[in-house]
Amino acid sequence: MSVQQPTWSPPTRSTQEPVLKVYNSLTRSKTEFTPRNGRHVKWYNCGPTVYDASHMGHARNYVTQDVLRRIMTDYFGYDIHFVMNITDIDDKIIERARQNHLLEKFRSEVQSLSQSLIDTVHDAWTLHLRSKVNKGLLAGDKLVEGQEESGWSRLTELAEDKQWKQESLKRDEKFEMYFSSATRTLSALSKARSEFATGKTDTTSAQQLVDAAGDILANSLDAKYKATVTDPAISRNLAAYWEEQFFNDMRRLRVRDPDTLTRVTEYVPEIVAFVERIVSNGYAYEAEGSVYFDTHAFDSADGHDYAKLEPWSKGNRELLEGGEGSLSSKAGRRSASDFALWKASKPGEPSWPSPWGAGRPGWHIECSVMASAILGDNMDIHSGGIDLAFPHHDNEIAQSEAYHNCGAWVNYFLHTGHLHIEGLKMSKSLKNFITIDQILEKYTARQLRLAFLTQLWTSKVDFSESLMTGEVRNIETTFNNFFINAKALLNQDRDNGTNSDGYHHYEVPEQELAKSFHESQSAFRAALCDSFNTPDAINILRDVVSRTNVYINTPRQRLNGQLIERIARWVGQMLRVFGLGEGESPEIGWGQESQGDGNVNREEVLMPYLRSLSAFRDGVRRLAMQKGDTALKDILSLCDKLRDDDLVPLGVALDDQEDGKALIKLVPPAELIKARDEKRALLEAKAAKKAMQVEAERQKRIQKLEKGRVAPQDLFKPPNVPEGTYGSWDEAGVPLTDSEGKELTKNQGKKVQKDWAAQKKLHEEFLAWQKEQSA
Amino acid sequence: MSVQQPTWSPPTRSTQEPVLKVYNSLTRSKTEFTPRNGRHVKWYNCGPTVYDASHMGHARNYVTQDVLRRIMTDYFGYDIHFVMNITDIDDKIIERARQNHLLEKFRSEVQSLSQSLIDTVHDAWTLHLRSKVNKGLLAGDKLVEGQEESGWSRLTELAEDKQWKQESLKRDEKFEMYFSSATRTLSALSKARSEFATGKTDTTSAQQLVDAAGDILANSLDAKYKATVTDPAISRNLAAYWEEQFFNDMRRLRVRDPDTLTRVTEYVPEIVAFVERIVSNGYAYEAEGSVYFDTHAFDSADGHDYAKLEPWSKGNRELLEGGEGSLSSKAGRRSASDFALWKASKPGEPSWPSPWGAGRPGWHIECSVMASAILGDNMDIHSGGIDLAFPHHDNEIAQSEAYHNCGAWVNYFLHTGHLHIEGLKMSKSLKNFITIDQILEKYTARQLRLAFLTQLWTSKVDFSESLMTGEVRNIETTFNNFFINAKALLNQDRDNGTNSDGYHHYEVPEQELAKSFHESQSAFRAALCDSFNTPDAINILRDVVSRTNVYINTPRQRLNGQLIERIARWVGQMLRVFGLGEGESPEIGWGQESQGDGNVNREEVLMPYLRSLSAFRDGVRRLAMQKGDTALKDILSLCDKLRDDDLVPLGVALDDQEDGKALIKLVPPAELIKARDEKRALLEAKAAKKAMQVEAERQKRIQKLEKGRVAPQDLFKPPNVPEGTYGSWDEAGVPLTDSEGKELTKNQGKKVQKDWAAQKKLHEEFLAWQKEQSA
Repeated sequence: MSVQQPTWSPPTRSTQEPVLKVYNSLTRSKTEFTPRNGRHVKWYNCGPTVYDASHMGHARNYVTQDVLRRIMTDYFGYDIHFVMNITDIDDKIIERARQNHLLEKFRSEVQSLSQSLIDTVHDAWTLHLRSKVNKGLLAGDKLVEGQEESGWSRLTELAEDKQWKQESLKRDEKFEMYFSSATRTLSALSKARSEFATGKTDTTSAQQLVDAAGDILANSLDAKYKATVTDPAISRNLAAYWEEQFFNDMRRLRVRDPDTLTRVTEYVPEIVAFVERIVSNGYAYEAEGSVYFDTHAFDSADGHDYAKLEPWSKGNRELLEGGEGSLSSKAGRRSASDFALWKASKPGEPSWPSPWGAGRPGWHIECSVMASAILGDNMDIHSGGIDLAFPHHDNEIAQSEAYHNCGAWVNYFLHTGHLHIEGLKMSKSLKNFITIDQILEKYTARQLRLAFLTQLWTSKVDFSESLMTGEVRNIETTFNNFFINAKALLNQDRDNGTNSDGYHHYEVPEQELAKSFHESQSAFRAALCDSFNTPDAINILRDVVSRTNVYINTPRQRLNGQLIERIARWVGQMLRVFGLGEGESPEIGWGQESQGDGNVNREEVLMPYLRSLSAFRDGVRRLAMQKGDTALKDILSLCDKLRDDDLVPLGVALDDQEDGKALIKLVPPAELIKARDEKRALLEAKAAKKAMQVEAERQKRIQKLEKGRVAPQDLFKPPNVPEGTYGSWDEAGVPLTDSEGKELTKNQGKKVQKDWAAQKKLHEEFLAWQKEQSA
Repeated sequence: MSVQQPTWSPPTRSTQEPVLKVYNSLTRSKTEFTPRNGRHVKWYNCGPTVYDASHMGHARNYVTQDVLRRIMTDYFGYDIHFVMNITDIDDKIIERARQNHLLEKFRSEVQSLSQSLIDTVHDAWTLHLRSKVNKGLLAGDKLVEGQEESGWSRLTELAEDKQWKQESLKRDEKFEMYFSSATRTLSALSKARSEFATGKTDTTSAQQLVDAAGDILANSLDAKYKATVTDPAISRNLAAYWEEQFFNDMRRLRVRDPDTLTRVTEYVPEIVAFVERIVSNGYAYEAEGSVYFDTHAFDSADGHDYAKLEPWSKGNRELLEGGEGSLSSKAGRRSASDFALWKASKPGEPSWPSPWGAGRPGWHIECSVMASAILGDNMDIHSGGIDLAFPHHDNEIAQSEAYHNCGAWVNYFLHTGHLHIEGLKMSKSLKNFITIDQILEKYTARQLRLAFLTQLWTSKVDFSESLMTGEVRNIETTFNNFFINAKALLNQDRDNGTNSDGYHHYEVPEQELAKSFHESQSAFRAALCDSFNTPDAINILRDVVSRTNVYINTPRQRLNGQLIERIARWVGQMLRVFGLGEGESPEIGWGQESQGDGNVNREEVLMPYLRSLSAFRDGVRRLAMQKGDTALKDILSLCDKLRDDDLVPLGVALDDQEDGKALIKLVPPAELIKARDEKRALLEAKAAKKAMQVEAERQKRIQKLEKGRVAPQDLFKPPNVPEGTYGSWDEAGVPLTDSEGKELTKNQGKKVQKDWAAQKKLHEEFLAWQKEQSA
């Protein structure tokens, strides 16, 4: 018998590997996630329409999608192709850009305050009242045409009434905005009229009127001149500007860039071809230069369903109209549920050539076309905000399945939940509208992300002060303290001796902590497999921290530093998976060999410091080469400037020492700035005090000098002595006799001589000072 | 009918997810990897015996295991608990520590060169010849006892013969080492004897003899005095020292620290208890204070097999003895295949109490005990070098299964392949022994890792100059160039305009590149699933790079930077998975909020720069405060020093510009140093040339001046003219007549007048120069 290995049996699993399930809007349930090709995942995410600053709604949506994407990439190890579009052709962009353009043009042409300008603004104001304000009023309150200005005071009285105001808001949520625009414009008009009456007609007065009436004017200018705006760059430039702002905001929120970005303006020919195919497949028709999707034809075709996501919304007119845009004509549309694939462009709207004439893409078609161009006829995941589900996503699905003649264009549709602010929908009219810029002044990107992570991605997040200062702050502090303690313990271990003499033995507490840690790792995985349950996952991490803290804080002979380090590293890694950590996006490449400086974008870190250093050096060189008298003093000021102005904001403190070698400290910049400003304030206070002292002394001296203003020869003459004090004087003005002609006594004589001599001295000093002053 | 969503069907996979298979030494085949508990993986890796510097064999073994661990953690996302032991009780450690200790003691007691010292060394030398050198000689060549010194010259003659030498090496691979020790000692002895004869008996001479005879002396001292060495700290200190060196080397090779480290010295009570249970289970027996594992009893028990890994090696005496250690007694052992679980300690060997008397653990038992203490009665993976498979790992398995009474202690046994150097086994006697310290002077950690990655982890790696300078260098250059080009392209893109106007449209070339990229991602996964096939995986990455280069280099209107960036990032990430990247081990925590400087040990990166900056500033301040004459000139020198001496080694180039603002560049330090030194050499050469010119001119001037040394009155007198040229002169020395008394002709007269006047001028110049020289 030849010698053979004994039989080996595969291990028996005592616990199964959990599988990833995701909440799929196509089934409204959690279904196992199965990518079509191995672990390659095709993912299309609806990007923003770029015409204004991004706000908390964007933050909620894109941060949440970033979290899902990071979990799938960094934790589950999928190879993801993440595609996102930028909607840069859209009625809102067109209108905003056109109005901005027309208003800017108008403003630049205004030279002075004229009756014609006042009339133009007044006309715009009445148009605004008719078209906007009247819409929000009950029949009895409406303003009478031609008598708007006289009727206005009645309205302002009504607006004092809270209930009246609320009812108006109910009829039109933008009513308050319209009302306050009208108020502002009317008051500017009245000011302009009185200025004009008093002849104050300068450019500044004119432009103040234009600025106050800006939004109202923009509307009326647009109504009159929109057809004159033909340059397509006007709307593209607006979109480009806000696209860049959007990505800046996203990067500040640590949202990863998409792998592939598609812009509608770059895909118009593809869109035309796509629409043509849908027409030829029998699911769309042309009407007056526009093309509409035939929802009935599609819905009744075999193997096709219209509105897979929200079939119950099919007839919802409000939702449908919202999707069509403010500039759409609808002429020739066969059914209210049909939607535009291609819109004929009117004058003043950008257009591209098509078989149906000059026009532009409808809103929904872009996503179908661009996703198909990049991902083909099927994708694993499509994501977007829940408000896009109907009609946008349902229309997208219908278009694409009509084009590809397929039954499942999207396998998993993931919709992120709504965002409320302090319990209410966020809106400009509710004055709870918060831009990303504003929120990042108040909270860090990490805190915002934590706020979203504490809720399910599908849930409504209620963003509130109490959430941020309560739970979020608690969680952050828990992790912060844990990391600080763990690092301190490990440093202590290291300081206590060589690494090789650390303590590694496992006793019962270490066994138990390790066991519970491993259970937490499994629970964490199970939570993420359960449709990315981040609130549970965060709680599991908090539990791990709390149990490790118990281990650390229980008095015992020795702590096993290695175990603490292992747990702390894992917790940190998982927080990084959620995008809560810094530096998770290393630069391209494998880093520089043997710099030993960790995962650093060296250039980014160093350049500010080096710029300081180099600029300082430049200055020193320049001064030293001047060889002027003041050069050396200037060099010293430069040294102080480097310390106080340049290095402080970089978080570097240079403490000048007796020995001439400054101590370098790395300190949070805010602390340094505070300390510097306090020091400056102190110095300024000191300087001010000194200045006051100097001034007081100066006043004292002036008072003294003023005593010498009288020449000695006048000292004993009126008005310096009462009329008739003395009778006669010698040539120097020294009194000889009193008023009665009686000679002064010897003592009196001595006194006047002495006073005269003193005054002579004072007067000389006074004259010298006067000469000095006039020099 | 209520409105419902249409039925959804799970997607049909067009390609399956590959599953991880690993080459399992227990089956000698690739088997699917199934962890017992979800994705938690228990892993035990055999660590080093720490008594000497770690070498290329260690590098091969631990780097390769690190690669497997990283792939499983960072790529496949397993939650791994990686345990490794340090063998700090071992016969080699005991002997080495004892000999070091005894030799050091002997050396410190030697005061002068004495006859007794010479005798001691000579005795050690003869002992060495008898016990070591004679063993490697054929019978006829052996040295006769008592006549070693006289027989030695014959041996040295024989050693000239290459064939003789090779045959000796065949009989004993350490023969050459022993021979050269003997030669070195004999020559030191002969020098010492003649020094002693001439009365040169100082400490230095004595210690030179001790040092030259060190290893031979250590052996003889150990033979005589080992029983006197009783302090257990002596061997523990040696182990602690080499353990620290080992981890330093590992960190330089970017091998991650184990999660849990176990040391034998910390687990002796557990070992005793473990051995007791094996005895009580009937698989071990005590003999003369030692305990042996009863291989026959175990092998014949139901459900147990001895030597599961290499059953064919069961009787291999050489392998078995190698596992027992040089200090083992074997007294009372029942079979040659039985092995020590517990060894009775002889005097001079560290010992711990046990039921069988003072002793210490056998080699194999530690791993069974410590792995069980941390991981329990089953582990998913056990790894180690292939040379440990039998008997070490087979004994470990037998012990543990005997203890736990289980049938499968280890589910997957992973053995890393051998390392050869230029085709030969690495050994000190072959003089191809390379420590990690040595190899890191020649190659970077990345290059070494690449060398190992180009081979299967199970294969023999032949480490050769041609591998390193050929394939490895090629691969590194390919990736380097790719990253540099990609970054340059992306920077160009960014410089060309705002981000939002980048180009993103997908044409056919982009579609094709993306498709092939996704196929490569799948192929990469398949390669790693195929038992971590890193050579294939590296080739796939090279293919990706090559295809992307083709895309970049094909002339076309516009490149899609986003696609290039995506590919470059992925390639970089995968290289990081292999541990080829920098900074893959972020500090504990989630980094500093809003420093925006990535995952940086900020202090470590910045401090060198800041020190420069601050020191420069200090200098400027000091000079500026001196207000001396030379201050400003000194400031300029300081500016040059900062540029040339301080910043160059930091990799910062300051290029001074016309406008006084230096351009800052980050450049690899080596390049900058080279450029600076070249510039300096050029300047020095220029200066030397100028100095030569100056010197040549000085010589010319001296020559000219020398012509004026003769005073004009002596110009026409000997020795300045031949004796008898002229007959008479005027008082100024101008000749009047020739030697024959004949008056000079008019023309002759004119000439001498002219020459006299010229000489007068020259002489004046000469005198002035002389005066100047003496001043």
